[in-house]
Amino acid sequence: MKSEVKLLGAWPSPFVTRVRIALNMKSVEYEFLEERLESKSQLLLQSNPIYQKIPVLIHRDKPLSESLIIVQYVDDVWSSHSPILPSDPYDRAIARFWAAYIDEKWYPTMRSIRGAEGIEEKKRLIEEVKKGLGLLEEVFKNSSKGKGFYGGDQLGMLDIALGGFLGWLRVTEIANGVKLLDQGNTPELVKWAQRFCEHDAVKHVMPDTGKLIEFAKTLKR
Amino acid sequence: MKSEVKLLGAWPSPFVTRVRIALNMKSVEYEFLEERLESKSQLLLQSNPIYQKIPVLIHRDKPLSESLIIVQYVDDVWSSHSPILPSDPYDRAIARFWAAYIDEKWYPTMRSIRGAEGIEEKKRLIEEVKKGLGLLEEVFKNSSKGKGFYGGDQLGMLDIALGGFLGWLRVTEIANGVKLLDQGNTPELVKWAQRFCEHDAVKHVMPDTGKLIEFAKTLKR
Repeated sequence: MKSEVKLLGAWPSPFVTRVRIALNMKSVEYEFLEERLESKSQLLLQSNPIYQKIPVLIHRDKPLSESLIIVQYVDDVWSSHSPILPSDPYDRAIARFWAAYIDEKWYPTMRSIRGAEGIEEKKRLIEEVKKGLGLLEEVFKNSSKGKGFYGGDQLGMLDIALGGFLGWLRVTEIANGVKLLDQGNTPELVKWAQRFCEHDAVKHVMPDTGKLIEFAKTLKR
Repeated sequence: MKSEVKLLGAWPSPFVTRVRIALNMKSVEYEFLEERLESKSQLLLQSNPIYQKIPVLIHRDKPLSESLIIVQYVDDVWSSHSPILPSDPYDRAIARFWAAYIDEKWYPTMRSIRGAEGIEEKKRLIEEVKKGLGLLEEVFKNSSKGKGFYGGDQLGMLDIALGGFLGWLRVTEIANGVKLLDQGNTPELVKWAQRFCEHDAVKHVMPDTGKLIEFAKTLKR
């Protein structure tokens, strides 16, 4: 039988991990099609001609790309349980704001650490990433309302947006011998990260840090 | 009486124009607080500490920034009429995809024409902008379903996302002696642009092209 939901992805991609978590939260069965960086499939090229990037979700033969747009789509289509976006319009807007901050500011800074020229520049970028996590710690305190996740009792949009990057955050910590999430700066996020990774919707799709480190080495070559 | 809705903006900003159109569509009365580039207000700095940018919408003393996030918020809060996002989840995701394309790819290219070094580079950028408009012409044909707007009969998310830039598109055309929207490449968008600018929600808030040209000269100085 032809699968109704297909996901074109690759296991190390934090953006793909986000979509997998959203699908897991909604108990949606899907076929995972692993793409290879070095030779993109015809299906990927025709499903996302603009960016030619994963993830692509194909639902009833209709393709969608951009991870946060897919996550919102999953929430819209499988709306009967486990809401991902907050129900209050203001809370929803705030979740979108910080998710965009993570994608447009915080993650590009973390990613640029690897290619930084000189120790001073690297230090500056690391401080900037930590400062961003400090902001996201404050957002957590405001939005979790004493519960375990950004979304309160349940995983939500911001948990998925930030949590998808936890594997690469750990790789960055190890590669640079620093703590980005630490007791001093982000005590709540330290506990949140552990809860997040142990969550049923997350634990089987969060890439293993050791494997990511091996993968990062192949990227360097 | 204190106004329930305030908008911190500036008349030449395409991002502010988007929010004004959305508020007009919903017949929301608001107080418009004109910000000055050279000295940002205390209210702006404290309402949007992360980016310190307009537009900021303040609704019942709670601030929001990022134009497309505000537009979605306006649609969520004043939901009883004139829907801005499509009701179908897939159509909604597609509208979000192309709105993000406009903000992340198309507009940055158009904006960079002004500072381009050399005629060849300028030509290349102009061709890229036209190619993007060609794509948006195809999207229009698919989503308008023979009606006047991206959203069908009524203005929608994509009309607002692209339409907000029409003033600056014309300035770019005049400054460079080119047609970006033209009968050959984008016949449907040529007609759409005229309809859009004549729409009741748009015509009083779309900046005048002549005034924008004068404003652009002050930016150069």
